[in-house]
Amino acid sequence: MNDLIKNRIDANRRSVLLRIKPGDEERIKLNSIAGSLIGQINEIGKNEGISGQLVGSTARGTWLSGEHDLDIFIMFPPEKERKYLEEKGLDIARKIAQGADCFEERYAEHPYINAVFSGFEVDLVPAFSVPYASEIKSAVDRTPFHNAFVLKKIAGLEDEVLLLKQFMKGIGVYGSELRKRGFSGYLAELLVINFGSFMNVLDAACGWKGRITIDIEKHGTLAHNDPMVMIDPTDPARNVAAVLSLDNLCTFIDRACEFLKNPDERYFTLHIPEPLDNVEFQRFLKTRGSSLIAVEFHAPDEVDDVLYPQLYKMEESISQVLEKFDFRVYNSGVWAARKAVVIFEIESARLPYVKRHTGPEIGFREHIDAFKSKYKDSNVFSRIYIRNGRYMVDIQRKYYNAKGLMLSELPKCGLGKHISMSIKEGYKVLENEEILAIENEDFRRFLRSFFIK
Amino acid sequence: MNDLIKNRIDANRRSVLLRIKPGDEERIKLNSIAGSLIGQINEIGKNEGISGQLVGSTARGTWLSGEHDLDIFIMFPPEKERKYLEEKGLDIARKIAQGADCFEERYAEHPYINAVFSGFEVDLVPAFSVPYASEIKSAVDRTPFHNAFVLKKIAGLEDEVLLLKQFMKGIGVYGSELRKRGFSGYLAELLVINFGSFMNVLDAACGWKGRITIDIEKHGTLAHNDPMVMIDPTDPARNVAAVLSLDNLCTFIDRACEFLKNPDERYFTLHIPEPLDNVEFQRFLKTRGSSLIAVEFHAPDEVDDVLYPQLYKMEESISQVLEKFDFRVYNSGVWAARKAVVIFEIESARLPYVKRHTGPEIGFREHIDAFKSKYKDSNVFSRIYIRNGRYMVDIQRKYYNAKGLMLSELPKCGLGKHISMSIKEGYKVLENEEILAIENEDFRRFLRSFFIK
Repeated sequence: MNDLIKNRIDANRRSVLLRIKPGDEERIKLNSIAGSLIGQINEIGKNEGISGQLVGSTARGTWLSGEHDLDIFIMFPPEKERKYLEEKGLDIARKIAQGADCFEERYAEHPYINAVFSGFEVDLVPAFSVPYASEIKSAVDRTPFHNAFVLKKIAGLEDEVLLLKQFMKGIGVYGSELRKRGFSGYLAELLVINFGSFMNVLDAACGWKGRITIDIEKHGTLAHNDPMVMIDPTDPARNVAAVLSLDNLCTFIDRACEFLKNPDERYFTLHIPEPLDNVEFQRFLKTRGSSLIAVEFHAPDEVDDVLYPQLYKMEESISQVLEKFDFRVYNSGVWAARKAVVIFEIESARLPYVKRHTGPEIGFREHIDAFKSKYKDSNVFSRIYIRNGRYMVDIQRKYYNAKGLMLSELPKCGLGKHISMSIKEGYKVLENEEILAIENEDFRRFLRSFFIK
Repeated sequence: MNDLIKNRIDANRRSVLLRIKPGDEERIKLNSIAGSLIGQINEIGKNEGISGQLVGSTARGTWLSGEHDLDIFIMFPPEKERKYLEEKGLDIARKIAQGADCFEERYAEHPYINAVFSGFEVDLVPAFSVPYASEIKSAVDRTPFHNAFVLKKIAGLEDEVLLLKQFMKGIGVYGSELRKRGFSGYLAELLVINFGSFMNVLDAACGWKGRITIDIEKHGTLAHNDPMVMIDPTDPARNVAAVLSLDNLCTFIDRACEFLKNPDERYFTLHIPEPLDNVEFQRFLKTRGSSLIAVEFHAPDEVDDVLYPQLYKMEESISQVLEKFDFRVYNSGVWAARKAVVIFEIESARLPYVKRHTGPEIGFREHIDAFKSKYKDSNVFSRIYIRNGRYMVDIQRKYYNAKGLMLSELPKCGLGKHISMSIKEGYKVLENEEILAIENEDFRRFLRSFFIK
């Protein structure tokens, strides 16, 4: 790496850190809120061995300024019943939340409370305080172990984590929620711990190909079939990167190389596309010459981690149905707010009425007789004929327009439970310009990135 | 097989034989012409050991009434030079042909004369009279050996051969010329010799699947990669069925089974399709909804055995080019008279302007850099993006209409020598209704079978 590049990277680091590193004021305020809430938990729970604990990036000094997310765990002795934890935990959380600006109850593996205190978003999460990570009783119980491991290793590397997280944010691959399938904060921390610095992570990433496996504690016990495998230092059986999608990993690799060649601060800022207006939409459609087809329906009222896997599954199911009926899919995408939209760019929304239907190979008399009696004179465009040793017949295509296909086949597609219920209540299939009926600004931003990627 | 079927088959046999078996008058006339011509050859050649010989189906009593084709060989001693045979052979043939109604010189492996005597078509073919089939000096030298083998085995089976040949004619698979790629007369004779009767051949054929191998003399020495292998009883290295196409073999298998189930005299009569008129053509086009695209050019002035392999090669080359550029080919065919036409039914003659172009996989930096610099900002519809671990970009499609593709790519296609020269002189690409400009009646018959098969 030449000096020019080094200097530019240093300038980027300074400038980005100035923007993302929490200042003293933020730090003090956060610690004071956390301290107060933990104090309250300890006070309420002292007779039952229940105590508060700050976990997550705020506990490790690796949170990005303005993220303002505090994870406060309400730790129960491991011998307690799960039902007790759920009831008592929620009870304590509710009491604490009385002092919040606002709060709501949420449900992951078990219930917790999301509250806002002086502008800081706080999750109050009941968990078991088990002695070893291998003895966890629910997924959240693992978090304190992550916390302990990172705290032990991260001192002095906090800025490196901040830079890596912000780089991942800027290129759009940060966040392990199922909508995004990107890098989690913990994964970013482990990468820094493993490679020693932000730049070392990028250097390593730029050379990655095939499956990536990192096992800091050298204790992995299972094979994982994921694009990236980061063995959890606190649990040899677990892949921390299990959620990371291949394309998010590849994007990270690509941008790592690009940044090393040409360091630029823009990599640290997520580009938000402008909404696509009607005129631009028409122009895109005309210059591409392909067809768009979209399903619009009421988005089920579920959290993103429930909704998006179902949307992606729907996208995949419909793609397969389109391809099965010879509509070639060029691109597809999902969007959701109050409405949900699954959209496809296809080669053509129309196909010929005729379709060459392939029958049995020569020599299989039973299949041949069935084929012949099925296609003799009924709904056929040709005689039964032989090509390359197989029986063939030209028949009427079942679906010669994509809209008709969608209207008929969508209810039979493999759909997730909540989307399936929503679809039963009704949906629209929109083709080309009809999609302009969806005027939502965020949808229009999505549309631009759907076209230009 | 029940009695009803047996009776119907017997009735078919009688009725068909009545139609196709040469009568005494035809037989006498043919023998008298052959005798006279052979006498003349013997007379002219007696000083040089040159003699005439009748070969082929007329020599074996297995010709179909009205076929009227006599093969008369002018046999030279094997020690003569090839050049001598060619000159002297043609010289003798010319002399004989002075007595013909008309004649012309033709050229296969070496020159011969095709003449008409009293309505009988006679080929006068010079050949070497070698002692063993393994010592032949040119392909025609093999014929006398075939003649001898069949003559030795065929007595009493002549009617069986006639029925089999007529059946093959009726279902359109008879004739080993390269235009047809069907069963030769010799192959039909060998099938009867091997299985013992017309019906036994059909019985066997109906059970055929996979590669068929028959070796009457059990002396085959080579593996053949053909759909059917009939080892030549006079040459262990040769497959008599080498020319037979898979689909003609399959058609024969299919019709054999059908005939055994439902014997009907129509199997013995070739169905000639009616010419397709303009209104029907339009209706076919409209109801199918696909697109037709045809190349029309001047047919090179070559015999069918030279022309058709080149036409089929052209059909295959263009199919591959169409598919390569995403035009899906449903059907294709060739036709030739003075003009030649290669025609394709395709899913659509138009494609979107946009095409998703797939680049290198992640990790191959050199290819990735080349891909990026090639597609950055130039003629692209999208940014470079990543899908399923590969780089992609939406680009302008090179050919978005099939006609443009044909006009640009045809001269670069792999074309046979004579067609290539003809194409250089000019060709037309016709789309849909434009094809109606070809009014030739035989082409219009071809068009009907192209659609309805």
